[in-house]
Amino acid sequence: MKKNILRSKIIQIFLKHKLSKKHSEICADYLIKAELVEAKSHGLTRLNMYCERIRRKLINAKPKIKIKKINSSISYIDADNSIGFVSADIGISQAIKNAKKTGIGLVGIKRSGHYGLSSFYAEQAVKKNLIVFCFTNAPPALAPHGAKKSLFGTNPICFGVPTGKVPFILDTSTSMINRGKIRHAEKFGKKIPFGVALNKYGKMTTNAKEALSGTQLPIGGFKGSGLAWMVDILSGVLTGSSHGGKTKDPFDDFTGPQNVGHLFITINPKVFIGKNFIKEIKKNIRLIKKLPKAKGFSSILYPGERKNFLYKKNMNKDISIPKKILKEMDDLNAI
Amino acid sequence: MKKNILRSKIIQIFLKHKLSKKHSEICADYLIKAELVEAKSHGLTRLNMYCERIRRKLINAKPKIKIKKINSSISYIDADNSIGFVSADIGISQAIKNAKKTGIGLVGIKRSGHYGLSSFYAEQAVKKNLIVFCFTNAPPALAPHGAKKSLFGTNPICFGVPTGKVPFILDTSTSMINRGKIRHAEKFGKKIPFGVALNKYGKMTTNAKEALSGTQLPIGGFKGSGLAWMVDILSGVLTGSSHGGKTKDPFDDFTGPQNVGHLFITINPKVFIGKNFIKEIKKNIRLIKKLPKAKGFSSILYPGERKNFLYKKNMNKDISIPKKILKEMDDLNAI
Repeated sequence: MKKNILRSKIIQIFLKHKLSKKHSEICADYLIKAELVEAKSHGLTRLNMYCERIRRKLINAKPKIKIKKINSSISYIDADNSIGFVSADIGISQAIKNAKKTGIGLVGIKRSGHYGLSSFYAEQAVKKNLIVFCFTNAPPALAPHGAKKSLFGTNPICFGVPTGKVPFILDTSTSMINRGKIRHAEKFGKKIPFGVALNKYGKMTTNAKEALSGTQLPIGGFKGSGLAWMVDILSGVLTGSSHGGKTKDPFDDFTGPQNVGHLFITINPKVFIGKNFIKEIKKNIRLIKKLPKAKGFSSILYPGERKNFLYKKNMNKDISIPKKILKEMDDLNAI
Repeated sequence: MKKNILRSKIIQIFLKHKLSKKHSEICADYLIKAELVEAKSHGLTRLNMYCERIRRKLINAKPKIKIKKINSSISYIDADNSIGFVSADIGISQAIKNAKKTGIGLVGIKRSGHYGLSSFYAEQAVKKNLIVFCFTNAPPALAPHGAKKSLFGTNPICFGVPTGKVPFILDTSTSMINRGKIRHAEKFGKKIPFGVALNKYGKMTTNAKEALSGTQLPIGGFKGSGLAWMVDILSGVLTGSSHGGKTKDPFDDFTGPQNVGHLFITINPKVFIGKNFIKEIKKNIRLIKKLPKAKGFSSILYPGERKNFLYKKNMNKDISIPKKILKEMDDLNAI
């Protein structure tokens, strides 16, 4: 489907679900962006879920989002259960403004929802020449080290840096693979890799459905578990949002709003060494890229390069949409 | 050896190496603390190395450490090649002051050296009721994803949070296993696990000796590699210190000062939800601790609890020192 046609269709669907024109456009653009970077698990496959939560009034279609200024570096946002895209979009703009003023910005967001990829927001800060951290929590998917039950979300750590070229954007879940990838595999009857998840009996599985009812494994055992705990504290406890396994699964828990929390930290990279920062980061990347390659590698990519490549490759192509999702979209449009 | 006698001996050694009384005391206290938490690889085993670098004038015994105030949140420290303990001790105090004033503090330190455990500094901020990140770079030990040669250090991510009880302090390297474990396996002719290191030809190895001359692997492949790269950028590039594999190995590279960089970020946890923060973090820990335990676990510990337990267990005991190190100390004292 042509990108502009798809965009109109998504906007139309959100408008029918009572989102404002501006909010519908924000959501459409982020969903399409996920498709363009081939993060299909965060794209159209979630449209039906967002709409269902809006219809059930678990996502507030007409949120009154409040921004409280703590001081010139720090802001606190009450998202009023808005769709995550919208509150995070407002939040990152505020974090950018704050760091531009003082060199460092901190923005906490409470009562939000799933916001797609953290890299969407990191990229905006990097394009404004800032270093950025984005943290968000998510529904239970990972067992804390020593436990046999999921509690942490896949809790991504996202970190972005301007390079003078393609943004350096690390966006890594603390699980071996993203939950979205498992959901996508389940939806389309595909297997997941060995070594990333246990079934509910604690045995390794490559069956996506079994993995979803079991638990995912963290990177590096207790290390990844600790990192996931850190993200739960930063995005959940600190911001006054859900934490400790209380973030609701957007796909199958309709008992209330998700109450996801986000935390953005922005830093002006010139704060210590001025313009030399760009010179040094270029040198850093150059030194690493010229290392001798491991077997099977022809080049060393920094985080963000692959997504940027995919985006450029796909940006002028039609977006292919599985029949199942086309049907969902038609149904949503007929509501 | 009794703790107070050991402390006097270490101070004596540093005084003989022309450190000031105050700096000698700071170094002695951190070295003893490493012994008490059983992080022996960061304790007395390094004393000889520090002293050798001082004698070779690669560590400056009389540094003129300059603190530049960028604004009320941000400070920049030129450590003048001081021993890492001293500049990091000054740096974390400054980061604490800044966050107490504005809610968020950022301190970059350049021209520093190995500073022991990141958790030493995180703990100080947590005891002043602050959330804290500590980043430092280190000499090459890890291959970037796609490379077959080491470039990143084991680059720890350290994160601390007040809990109202024992500080939550995550202090995790981004490598699959600690280098100390590989050294131990080599010493006792044991194999190391598959998947943690490559030999010098870039092939996976379980032979400890081959691993030491090869490269260690990061947690979660490209994920851990990205995290190590993030730490290199934050502590090296941003602060104007060494980066991109240029941090000198303190044990065997005497061609110049290490030029290690550190970055501390401090946050007042009450900034968004006030006093509720402590209530919520306690709830968070309670929820996680009461999860059903995995096989082989009788309890779930949060990061920092084990080190705290060891510290308390050892704090009133004599410190056992291997003969080899006692001899080194005698030699250092005779200089």
